[in-house]
Amino acid sequence: MAISYEEFRSAIHDGARRRSLLFRDGQPFFVLLSQQFSRAELEALCDTATAIRRLDRHRDGREFLLAILRGHRVMNLFAQPSTRTAQSFIAGADKLGATSTLVSDIQTSSFAKGESIADSVRTLSSFFDAIVVRHPDDEFATQAAWALHNSNRPVPVISAGSGKSQHVTQALLDFYTLRYSFYERGGVDGKRLVIVGDIARNRAARSLALVLTKFRPASIHFISPVDFAPDDELTGYLRRHEIEVELSDNLEAWLRERGREADAIYMTRLQREWDSGGAAGQPNHRATKSELGADDAYVLRPDYRLLVREDCVIMHPLPRINELPSEWEDHPGFVVWRQVRNGMWIRAALFATINGAAGEIRARAQRLQLL
Amino acid sequence: MAISYEEFRSAIHDGARRRSLLFRDGQPFFVLLSQQFSRAELEALCDTATAIRRLDRHRDGREFLLAILRGHRVMNLFAQPSTRTAQSFIAGADKLGATSTLVSDIQTSSFAKGESIADSVRTLSSFFDAIVVRHPDDEFATQAAWALHNSNRPVPVISAGSGKSQHVTQALLDFYTLRYSFYERGGVDGKRLVIVGDIARNRAARSLALVLTKFRPASIHFISPVDFAPDDELTGYLRRHEIEVELSDNLEAWLRERGREADAIYMTRLQREWDSGGAAGQPNHRATKSELGADDAYVLRPDYRLLVREDCVIMHPLPRINELPSEWEDHPGFVVWRQVRNGMWIRAALFATINGAAGEIRARAQRLQLL
Amino acid sequence: MAISYEEFRSAIHDGARRRSLLFRDGQPFFVLLSQQFSRAELEALCDTATAIRRLDRHRDGREFLLAILRGHRVMNLFAQPSTRTAQSFIAGADKLGATSTLVSDIQTSSFAKGESIADSVRTLSSFFDAIVVRHPDDEFATQAAWALHNSNRPVPVISAGSGKSQHVTQALLDFYTLRYSFYERGGVDGKRLVIVGDIARNRAARSLALVLTKFRPASIHFISPVDFAPDDELTGYLRRHEIEVELSDNLEAWLRERGREADAIYMTRLQREWDSGGAAGQPNHRATKSELGADDAYVLRPDYRLLVREDCVIMHPLPRINELPSEWEDHPGFVVWRQVRNGMWIRAALFATINGAAGEIRARAQRLQLL
Repeated sequence: MAISYEEFRSAIHDGARRRSLLFRDGQPFFVLLSQQFSRAELEALCDTATAIRRLDRHRDGREFLLAILRGHRVMNLFAQPSTRTAQSFIAGADKLGATSTLVSDIQTSSFAKGESIADSVRTLSSFFDAIVVRHPDDEFATQAAWALHNSNRPVPVISAGSGKSQHVTQALLDFYTLRYSFYERGGVDGKRLVIVGDIARNRAARSLALVLTKFRPASIHFISPVDFAPDDELTGYLRRHEIEVELSDNLEAWLRERGREADAIYMTRLQREWDSGGAAGQPNHRATKSELGADDAYVLRPDYRLLVREDCVIMHPLPRINELPSEWEDHPGFVVWRQVRNGMWIRAALFATINGAAGEIRARAQRLQLL
Repeated sequence: MAISYEEFRSAIHDGARRRSLLFRDGQPFFVLLSQQFSRAELEALCDTATAIRRLDRHRDGREFLLAILRGHRVMNLFAQPSTRTAQSFIAGADKLGATSTLVSDIQTSSFAKGESIADSVRTLSSFFDAIVVRHPDDEFATQAAWALHNSNRPVPVISAGSGKSQHVTQALLDFYTLRYSFYERGGVDGKRLVIVGDIARNRAARSLALVLTKFRPASIHFISPVDFAPDDELTGYLRRHEIEVELSDNLEAWLRERGREADAIYMTRLQREWDSGGAAGQPNHRATKSELGADDAYVLRPDYRLLVREDCVIMHPLPRINELPSEWEDHPGFVVWRQVRNGMWIRAALFATINGAAGEIRARAQRLQLL
Repeated sequence: MAISYEEFRSAIHDGARRRSLLFRDGQPFFVLLSQQFSRAELEALCDTATAIRRLDRHRDGREFLLAILRGHRVMNLFAQPSTRTAQSFIAGADKLGATSTLVSDIQTSSFAKGESIADSVRTLSSFFDAIVVRHPDDEFATQAAWALHNSNRPVPVISAGSGKSQHVTQALLDFYTLRYSFYERGGVDGKRLVIVGDIARNRAARSLALVLTKFRPASIHFISPVDFAPDDELTGYLRRHEIEVELSDNLEAWLRERGREADAIYMTRLQREWDSGGAAGQPNHRATKSELGADDAYVLRPDYRLLVREDCVIMHPLPRINELPSEWEDHPGFVVWRQVRNGMWIRAALFATINGAAGEIRARAQRLQLL
């Protein structure tokens, strides 16, 4: 039963073997990778989120939801502070009546006394029914899942952003927002999506792209400084999934020429605070703090509104600096605040799904003609 | 609909225009200023607090209260640590069945990445039904309210102490304690109140004085070091509201001469840790940490008990150093611990009022003959 | 009614006078000392823990438990960070429907403004129905209890580890685990227990030994470096309670010669990070951080499995470094993870007992034939 970490890690990164470790009884148990869900599972998850959102509007529905995970305890183990992500998980669990705890001091606790990660995770997990994990180390969530896989009291693990590579639940909320926005236009299949900004280092944009491979968008167009373009691993993966991939580095030129093609524009922040050299067209340039967000080339200027359709969906994972000015807020396709709320609903849906309660929730919503 | 911050700010500081922004459907929505409530509203709030306090004593009443805000989520956004104020709000919300979260790391979160206050408040508020705000900046609570006023999902904002100017809920709990203490003696109208200590920089004392303008106390006598006396803005405001204002700087002399006039003595801490010069009678004196609380001139010495009436109410907002010695604890008018508990009850009453549940609570208490 | 701290402190350390201060209405009110419970009380507490554990397995039992302390509020005042102990208390309270708050910033709060411990504890306790206290100072929990004893709104105080001397609830969970492990072999009476490691400075081992004096174990054998052996106060106390005490400093030799005598081996960490000199056989040796956990002489090596019985109970309070290798995890007597869970159950049982609900819980479990 006990397997080594290396075996566990290599198995979950292998599409064929992944499922036996990450799912139990047909439900996700460890949520570690954006690409671990099937198309049908993603659609069911979105429907569950919508059911929860609509049930929550009425007193009866709210009471029904609050009983779903009553007595259930969730630990949010955040080694890296992320107030909004943590609060979104806590709110999602709360909607279903679960109790959440935020533990953010693991750095200073028993690790310092020489305890192993496995012991520490297993000890803390003893008091909970599920754990949500955020850590600067890409491997931490996987190590936590491995430690629990090998224990005699495993509990589900959900990654809330692991290192620089994955941000599964951000991808799920972004996908949910896209799907919802395109609901009366046939979903994301056939749509042309534009992702703007720092793709290379942005977990949200990368993770969303991985989820989209389960669907049939017509194309994903990345517009970014040359140095922050998606790597070959990502573009290759998308192309193998028959998604047309285009790259360019001039937002204005592209919008003037082809802006009306865009079904959705997903803006991201140029994370200049991390820069150690290299901005578009200025190789070896070393950015300073004062330049944070200063590059107008990747700002969706208010005057660009004339260049995109009124039904183009405008998204941003937040926080933003200047790349998506407030003048866009009354554009009909501006769904940024909906994204934030959707984060709470999709996380609630994930908790419900993991605990096998999603079917019951959707059935209740259907009976009340909310779905 | 969207108004500029300058407009918003100037409107709420204008008695005539304030109400349209701070109240919705006749209920307070943004609680930012001690002077925003009418006399009738303050009385109703106190009655609601009493109803909650008495209902909470019995199992049935407790169950009734726990259902009032069930499923309701409150964020306590404390940029400035204040354990007791935060815990008082959390306890108050808890009494009505609401869930609270304390967020205290906003300094280190997305603000540092260049996000605006408006975006940050609006993002976090997405997961909540009300927010309580404490911040060292006088303007922060107002900015938060403005950001939410302009959003399409506004939630109530309650200031929990904003900069050096206002501490609304402290004023409400102090007023509630006074009103309750004078309940069988006709309320605060006609009473002579004495406020001792550092008035200039003490939010609690100033805020209480602002609330008292909605009533008819006979006089407020401020006894403080000359340099820490109330400013002309405050004394002018009180006089315009027909409250007799007196100032002096010698506590012992005043008590010996007129101590038996006092209906209530409100002690405050000389906040010597902030001093950068000037104590009573010693101009240009620079206080050091070691002198913290050392000035006997503004201590209510145990032997002064002979100088005040037995029915004189003795208050203090806490924490205290040496200015209200423990020998006073068995004085019949000593209500300092009641003040602390009242903070919880009045905050619960405020949550109930904001959510339109105050009438139902008072009605239940009346039916059970608790009010 | 008000007594001085010195009186209070000396009374609770006097076996004859202790009870009148620490118990109210026959229930523990202040839980400060491992030795404060009688044999019958310890047995009832363990039965309550078992009842809660078994009721929690089924939906009906869980609902029954969640109503026990509904509306009850617990403050966890942790001046010293201890994530796992705090989470164990919070989980235990949660199982009974109580609400918990973790307050860990008391160092930076009003204490810094010159407030007394008594004022601070009393103010914070105003919002709660019970407080759990952890502090590096041996006296803090006792001071908190004294402050509340003298107030007109006393609430129960539970020590969660006070200084270097006591860790009552760790002792209770360890005792509960031992009792449960020996359930079908007549309990701890007559058993031979071995405690290995740093006894002198380990609160857990010392506290467990104090609890065991209420029973009749045949012997306690301490195996430790000479410099970390139990002091005469502890060994004298055990001998006065007719427990045979043996000391030695060679784990391997003892196991080879008498290992099959052991009914339970309680391993502890050599807390080398505190060392300022002196390891076994190497007087005046000054340990460095790099030696943390390095002393093989007090490691329960995997090959020692042949030297102990299969029914020997293997315990550790965690965190561990290298002294209890993972190869032991499949030994039939390895109960370390059960200890962690038992911490939650025994703390829930303690909350129930303090609130007079233990009898009701045990009766329910008996009716359902769970006890």
